[in-house]
Amino acid sequence: MKALIVYAHEEPKSFNAALLKSTVDTLSGMGMTVTVSDLYAMNFDPVGGKRDFTTLHEPDYFKYAVEQTHATTAGTFVPELAAEHKKLLEADLLLFQFPLWWFGLPAILKGWVDRVFAAGLIYGGGKWYSNGIFQGKRAMLCLTTGGPANMYSPRGLSGDIDTILYPIQHGMLYFVGYGVLPPMVCWSAARVSDEKRAEYLAQYQQRLLAWQTTPVIPFHPLSDYDQSMQLKQS
Amino acid sequence: MKALIVYAHEEPKSFNAALLKSTVDTLSGMGMTVTVSDLYAMNFDPVGGKRDFTTLHEPDYFKYAVEQTHATTAGTFVPELAAEHKKLLEADLLLFQFPLWWFGLPAILKGWVDRVFAAGLIYGGGKWYSNGIFQGKRAMLCLTTGGPANMYSPRGLSGDIDTILYPIQHGMLYFVGYGVLPPMVCWSAARVSDEKRAEYLAQYQQRLLAWQTTPVIPFHPLSDYDQSMQLKQS
Repeated sequence: MKALIVYAHEEPKSFNAALLKSTVDTLSGMGMTVTVSDLYAMNFDPVGGKRDFTTLHEPDYFKYAVEQTHATTAGTFVPELAAEHKKLLEADLLLFQFPLWWFGLPAILKGWVDRVFAAGLIYGGGKWYSNGIFQGKRAMLCLTTGGPANMYSPRGLSGDIDTILYPIQHGMLYFVGYGVLPPMVCWSAARVSDEKRAEYLAQYQQRLLAWQTTPVIPFHPLSDYDQSMQLKQS
Repeated sequence: MKALIVYAHEEPKSFNAALLKSTVDTLSGMGMTVTVSDLYAMNFDPVGGKRDFTTLHEPDYFKYAVEQTHATTAGTFVPELAAEHKKLLEADLLLFQFPLWWFGLPAILKGWVDRVFAAGLIYGGGKWYSNGIFQGKRAMLCLTTGGPANMYSPRGLSGDIDTILYPIQHGMLYFVGYGVLPPMVCWSAARVSDEKRAEYLAQYQQRLLAWQTTPVIPFHPLSDYDQSMQLKQS
């Protein structure tokens, strides 16, 4: 089994770095082949657009999804993206390791999704959600926050963490077919005690050890929707 | 009055470009001073981190918010960010013009927020939400989607558009104090008729003409929360 960890933190002494190291150790210890896309170290360029392609199919009017679909058959993705595609397509488990920035992915990781989840190759032609190409595979977020858990409760100031992560967990990961495991959230990572951080590491290790048997977040399969894409009345 | 439009589309023939042009014309026609941050044209770098600063305060252990706070008083933001700060601080109206990518901002625009909404300068020390530095000012999203409106309804396949935009409208714009105007959403912009697109342009023009008198999205003020950041029981 193979895992791909997409990692978005610049500081090697950070708690995100500690989580990454622990994850690699844990998964390797389980006999998995682990690949890391360390986006800052790779100097990954997150800006999706013309620069994704070695040549353009319709240079006079750039349409991103059209170019992606063309590049899928023509093989005209730039090498840095083709390399990410290969890692992604081979992975049985996809992990995002990141600090929550402005209630979302840091731009370097958002742009990894923008560019790597390419139309034609990763979705399209009826391949999405429960019919997505990664169905049967698993994805999971591991994130650190600035604020404490109570701020991210349904009545908390930041809003419910499930709502905040919905565009990522449903809109990105489930969109391409993954079974999405409940997120590992390390609340207030920079403000808690060393003991608490050790607890987070131990907790996440348990989560990783159990990844194959952990129930996924229940999202509706396509069959629950009618032809106008509305949930059917049950 | 001054407006800042942060624009994230690479193709000058796109509908986003048409919306941008129309916005500039409309606001200028109202006597406003309009500034555009055309992120693709500027080749804006959205990767937040060490490169935001001319010198680092704590080079041995990079903490983003600490460095931002230091740079606020030390004046050590790189010139490209200092220029964006100036535009932002002067604007009475902030507009984001973008295509919805993966249920969020394209990375080039997400990274504009990551880097420009700097701790110390734009928020912090009790300055957030209804006590944010932009209180009394207005912000609004204008976006295009791939799918039709019914997909973004509360029972639609994509999920409710209000939920999808919550991290942006509440988590970014309201966080720094803006009154957030209801978003202008141009559904299926690439798939609808020219007539429908002309209607979107006309509709948005009306929205812009009325920006000073349009009610903002109702978000709770800080006084609605107790000391543990939970909404008080009413």
